[in-house]
Amino acid sequence: MSEILGKAKRAKEITYQLASLSTIQKNEALQVMASALESDRDAILSANAVDVENGRAAGQTKTLLDRLTLTDSRICDMADGLRQVAELADPIGETIQTMDRPNGLRIEKKRVPLGVIGIIYEARPNVTVDAAGLCLKTGNAVILRGSSTAIHSNRQIVQCLQVALDQVGFPKEAVQLIEDTSREAASELFTLNEYLDVLIPRGGASLIKTVVEKASVPVLETGVGNCHVFIDESADVEMARSIAINAKTQRPSVCNAAETLLIHRKWADNHLPTLLTDLHEHGVELFGEEELLKWDSQATIAKEHDWAEEYLDLKLAVKFVDSTEDAMDHIRTYGTKHSEAIVSETAEHVQDFLNGVDAAAVYHNASTRFTDGFEFGFGAEIGISTQKLHARGPMGLEALTSTKFMIFGEGQIKP
Amino acid sequence: MSEILGKAKRAKEITYQLASLSTIQKNEALQVMASALESDRDAILSANAVDVENGRAAGQTKTLLDRLTLTDSRICDMADGLRQVAELADPIGETIQTMDRPNGLRIEKKRVPLGVIGIIYEARPNVTVDAAGLCLKTGNAVILRGSSTAIHSNRQIVQCLQVALDQVGFPKEAVQLIEDTSREAASELFTLNEYLDVLIPRGGASLIKTVVEKASVPVLETGVGNCHVFIDESADVEMARSIAINAKTQRPSVCNAAETLLIHRKWADNHLPTLLTDLHEHGVELFGEEELLKWDSQATIAKEHDWAEEYLDLKLAVKFVDSTEDAMDHIRTYGTKHSEAIVSETAEHVQDFLNGVDAAAVYHNASTRFTDGFEFGFGAEIGISTQKLHARGPMGLEALTSTKFMIFGEGQIKP
Repeated sequence: MSEILGKAKRAKEITYQLASLSTIQKNEALQVMASALESDRDAILSANAVDVENGRAAGQTKTLLDRLTLTDSRICDMADGLRQVAELADPIGETIQTMDRPNGLRIEKKRVPLGVIGIIYEARPNVTVDAAGLCLKTGNAVILRGSSTAIHSNRQIVQCLQVALDQVGFPKEAVQLIEDTSREAASELFTLNEYLDVLIPRGGASLIKTVVEKASVPVLETGVGNCHVFIDESADVEMARSIAINAKTQRPSVCNAAETLLIHRKWADNHLPTLLTDLHEHGVELFGEEELLKWDSQATIAKEHDWAEEYLDLKLAVKFVDSTEDAMDHIRTYGTKHSEAIVSETAEHVQDFLNGVDAAAVYHNASTRFTDGFEFGFGAEIGISTQKLHARGPMGLEALTSTKFMIFGEGQIKP
Repeated sequence: MSEILGKAKRAKEITYQLASLSTIQKNEALQVMASALESDRDAILSANAVDVENGRAAGQTKTLLDRLTLTDSRICDMADGLRQVAELADPIGETIQTMDRPNGLRIEKKRVPLGVIGIIYEARPNVTVDAAGLCLKTGNAVILRGSSTAIHSNRQIVQCLQVALDQVGFPKEAVQLIEDTSREAASELFTLNEYLDVLIPRGGASLIKTVVEKASVPVLETGVGNCHVFIDESADVEMARSIAINAKTQRPSVCNAAETLLIHRKWADNHLPTLLTDLHEHGVELFGEEELLKWDSQATIAKEHDWAEEYLDLKLAVKFVDSTEDAMDHIRTYGTKHSEAIVSETAEHVQDFLNGVDAAAVYHNASTRFTDGFEFGFGAEIGISTQKLHARGPMGLEALTSTKFMIFGEGQIKP
C-alpha cells in the first residue's frame, strides 16, 4: 500500500472519533499544540534552516525563500494562530434549521465535519500549522501535502503537532503529512474519493488548475485574483487615488491586490495626471493602450496577456472605458471572479456594477484588499474560494463543514 | 464549433440577463411555459409515441418504458409542477448575512444564481420540465442532456418551452437541449469549466460514477441509496414492522427505499417471525447469512455484493447484529451516505446512531422514504445530494444558488 493510500485510510477510520470530540477537548488540543510549537522551536528552526539552505542552493527566488524562512517570531505567530482558532466559536453540532412537518416529523439540520480534507500547497510552513488548526477545530482529519522545498520544516512541525495530539489523547492521524513530495504522489490524492471528502489546493494558478482538472475528489478552488478597480466618471478624486494606490501597492503579492485599473475617460480627462504621479511615486509600472502613452510616456504597450495577467507585482494594466457597461464587459472577459471594485458617486452605476459583475466580492468605494477571512470577521481563513459551489469568497471555519439532517419520528411511514 | 460548445457559450452569455430578472418576470414565464405544455400536448404526445415505439423495438425494460411514456395526465402534472415552482419563494437576491465591520465597511452576503447548470439524465421527459423550471426560477441557464431514448420527446418539450420563453421576452437559451446524444458529446460537457458552473448527473449509479470521475466542472453528486433500517433490541414491535415494510415496499424503485435490514439478535429472538410474515406477504425476497435460513427457509444466502447492492426491487438483505456499534460498522462499510434509520426506544443508542452514522439523513423511528424535497417542505427537488460539499440531502431551489459578497465603503483602504 502506498504512503498516501495508507494515510488516507487511517484518516477516514478516525473521522467518527474526531466528529464526536467536544469543543472543550478540541480547544485544549489547540492550546497544547501551540505550546508544543514554542517548545520545539529549536528543532523546527534547525529543520527549516536545511530547507532554506537547499532552496538557496537550488536558486529559489527571494520571494519563495522569504515565505519559506521561519524565525522565532514567525513560530510565535503560528502558535498564536492556533490559540486564536481555539477562541473561535465551534460550528460543529450547531442546529442550522429546524422544521416541524405536518406529519409530526421534526427535521433538524446540523453542522458536521466534512471528514477528511486534503490540502496541497506550496513552500509555506505556516500553512501546515494553519490548516492543521482549522481542520482540527472543525473535527476534520487533514492530510497535508506541502512542497518538497519545505519538507524538513513540515516534517518537524507535523511531528511536533502529533506529539501534542497524542498527549491530549487524540489520534495522531488527525494531522498527517505526505512525505513523498513527488508529483505522482500528489496525483494519487486526486482520485481517492473513497477516503477524501475534499481537496483544497493553495498556491499558484498552475497548481490550482492541475488539481481542478485532474481531481475526481470534490475541490474547493482557491484564489487566483485578476482584480479590477473601476474609476467611474463621478468618482471622488481623492478616494479614487487612494483606493487605486492601496489596491495595487499595499501588498502586491496577494490575490486580492488589483491588477487592472479601468478608468472612465471623462474622469481621466480631468484627474489622470495626479493619479499617474501617485502610481509613479509608488514605483508602479504601467501597461496600457496607445492612448495611455499620450498621458504617460513611461508606460508600456499592453499585450493581450496583460489584461489577463495576475502580476502579483508592482505592475498595473490601465484601460480607458466610456461607461460602466464597458468596464463590466472587460471584467467579464478577463476577470477571475475574485474581487472587483467600483469607485463612483452615481447610485445607478454602483447598482449596475454590484449586480452585474460576477465575482466572489464586489466593492463600492473600498479597496479590493479587504477580501480576507480576518477582514470579514471570520477570525480565520483557509483560503479564498473563487468557485460558486459550497463556499465563495473568504472561507472560515464554516467552509470546512457539511450538514446532516436528523429526523425524529414516532413511527411515521410514507403514505 | 461543436453543438455543445456553441450552446454552452450562448448560455454563459445570457447569465447576466437571467440574473437580473425579477421574481414577477420569472413567475410569469413559468406560468406561460405551463400553459404552452398543455397547448402543445398533441405534438408532445406524438413525439413521445415515437420514443416509446423505438424503445419497445430496442427491447427496453418495462420500468424504463413506463418512465418514458407520457400521457395527458402526466403532461398536466408537468405543467402543474411549473406552476408550483412559480408559487415558491424566490431565493435570488436575498441577503443572507450582514456584517458591519469596525472600519465602517458594511458587508452583505447575497444569494445569486450559479450561472449555467448542466444536467445529464436518463429517459425521463418529466426531468426536462422539472429541471427547466427550477433552473429558471433561480435565474440559471440550463443545458439539458437527456437520454437518446427520449430525444423526440425532449426536443418537442424544449421547443415548446423556448417558444414560451420567447413569448415573454426571455432569451430562449435559458433552456437548451443537447441534441447530440452520443457519449462523446456528453463527455464534452465534463470539461467546459469556462462556461458551465455545475454539472448534475441524475440517474443510475454508473452514470453518476462516470460524471464524478471524468468531470472537471464541479459536480453535484446525486442519489445512489443503499439505505439501512436498524431494528434495535428495544424497538417497538409494531413500529419496527411497519417502518421496515414501508421503507422496503412502499416504492422499491427509488433511492430512499431500504435495501438492508439490520436486526438486533435479541429483538429477532422475540419478534422476527411476525416481521418475516409481513415481508413474505409483501412479496419481498430475502438475502442473508446462514443464520437467517434457520428462521426462513425461503431466504437466499447473501453474497458479499448483496450488502452493497441498491436492489431498487422487492429484495432485501437481512443481517443480525449484537449492538448499535455493530450496526454502524456495517453501515460504514456498505452504506452510500444517503438515508439510514434506527428504530429504538433506547435514548443512548439513538444518540450514538444519529451522531455516529455518516449520511445525508439519519432517522429515529421513521421510514427512510421521507428523504425527499417535498417531504422536507422545500416544495421542489432537483435531486438528493450524497456528497458533502455545497448541498447534502434533498436539494431544493437553494441548492441551485451561490452567494456573492457586496461590500459598501466610504473610501476604506487596507492599513
